[in-house]
Amino acid sequence: MVKMIALYKQPKDKEAFDEHYKNVHTPITKKIPGLKKMKVTKITGSPMGESEYYLLCEMYYESHEALKKAMKTEEAKASAKDVMSFAGDIVTMMIGEEVDE
Amino acid sequence: MVKMIALYKQPKDKEAFDEHYKNVHTPITKKIPGLKKMKVTKITGSPMGESEYYLLCEMYYESHEALKKAMKTEEAKASAKDVMSFAGDIVTMMIGEEVDE
Repeated sequence: MVKMIALYKQPKDKEAFDEHYKNVHTPITKKIPGLKKMKVTKITGSPMGESEYYLLCEMYYESHEALKKAMKTEEAKASAKDVMSFAGDIVTMMIGEEVDE
Repeated sequence: MVKMIALYKQPKDKEAFDEHYKNVHTPITKKIPGLKKMKVTKITGSPMGESEYYLLCEMYYESHEALKKAMKTEEAKASAKDVMSFAGDIVTMMIGEEVDE
């Protein structure tokens, strides 16, 4: 499987972030055509104590082709625009493929 | 599920990294008691083109308690020591819990 990964650093206002993420960003993102699964991980710390990161979101697609196609849709553009509006300064986006280890 | 996450930036020598990761680090890490699943994701890029990141590894445990217990074992210490030996300057460790989105 191929996945788009969004890794967020600690937001200044966690409550406002959580509220927007859950009630605005997630519903917009789930509308992206071809999205198979969306998995959210709350970062709770690190082996050394605190972490500079807050949230990891993994969005699965069938293939790189399917992801590329999805990225061109209006729904994906709306999701990307929304991310930039509330977390543009703390988010890192990556594209990855799961491999057998 | 609770997971330990290792996020690696691009190594200087990818071939040496891959070789050590597959043949040395993965076998050591898989011996950690309580480890339920290890999922490796190759980072292939980002929506903007290249990514500064290279690899994401997610290691699953039953609970925070199980993870804490695992981290105290000799096997986990050997895995941590090995990571530091070949990727200490490019790895970021996080602890997270998957949530329903």
